Amino acid sequence: MTDEAYMDRALELAREALEAGEVPVGCVIVWEDGRIVGEGRNRREEDGDALGHAELAAIRMACGTVGGWRLHKAVMYVTLEPCPMCAGAIVNARIPVVRYGAKDEGMGACGSVLNLFEEGFGHRPRLYRGPREAECAQVMRDFFTKLREK
Amino acid sequence: MTDEAYMDRALELAREALEAGEVPVGCVIVWEDGRIVGEGRNRREEDGDALGHAELAAIRMACGTVGGWRLHKAVMYVTLEPCPMCAGAIVNARIPVVRYGAKDEGMGACGSVLNLFEEGFGHRPRLYRGPREAECAQVMRDFFTKLREK
Repeated sequence: MTDEAYMDRALELAREALEAGEVPVGCVIVWEDGRIVGEGRNRREEDGDALGHAELAAIRMACGTVGGWRLHKAVMYVTLEPCPMCAGAIVNARIPVVRYGAKDEGMGACGSVLNLFEEGFGHRPRLYRGPREAECAQVMRDFFTKLREK
Repeated sequence: MTDEAYMDRALELAREALEAGEVPVGCVIVWEDGRIVGEGRNRREEDGDALGHAELAAIRMACGTVGGWRLHKAVMYVTLEPCPMCAGAIVNARIPVVRYGAKDEGMGACGSVLNLFEEGFGHRPRLYRGPREAECAQVMRDFFTKLREK
């Protein structure tokens, strides 16, 4: 599968979150052999859980799949720039490559508010923008449109 | 119960982690009425989970106990300075007061490597050192002594 196909899967998960009334964020974690070892979407409101972000769900699932906390052979695809909690989890899990779609000017910890990976916490993932930046930004706009209609 | 008694409970949890061969960190979350609504200890190695920190376990449990993701009437007591993931989770959960025992020069995100609460992520918890700083530092030293003996 290509980077585009993995990000498309993350977008599917984001749209599922949107349908459920959640902030639409989806995340997929891919192992070096190409398998999807973890995925998740935002469930904060449904689960009433402050930790209910897409990335944490995907990381927990991936740790279970690979049988350990070191995701050192993984790539993360996520539709929205990770927040500090999720960027910190990426560091803790030693994920070496992160690809994200849309910027998050309010809470983004991968370049927007700050870049947590450049702050001296030891592990520095390689960070890429895209693919599917436009689609990832659109799903966020769809959420805010829906919110205003309420 | 006093601040000292809550931190003593966090220290009990940290020592339980130490016995289990984990980095000894314990965490207790207390609601405004004095109830302990969440607690946890580090379980990263046992669970093989990069998210297995004491603070995340306590936050998840507290969200379940109070029935929602907003822990805006809670105080967190934690034996070690939170890492970026846990400091980000504290912001996401809107916890207004954090008390921690020992400093973490390598991964601390509440003043050591940086102070995440002063970086513009909207929610700024009040941060206190102690009580029981000496005991919290000692349990970490006990861990490193044990590690060297192996």
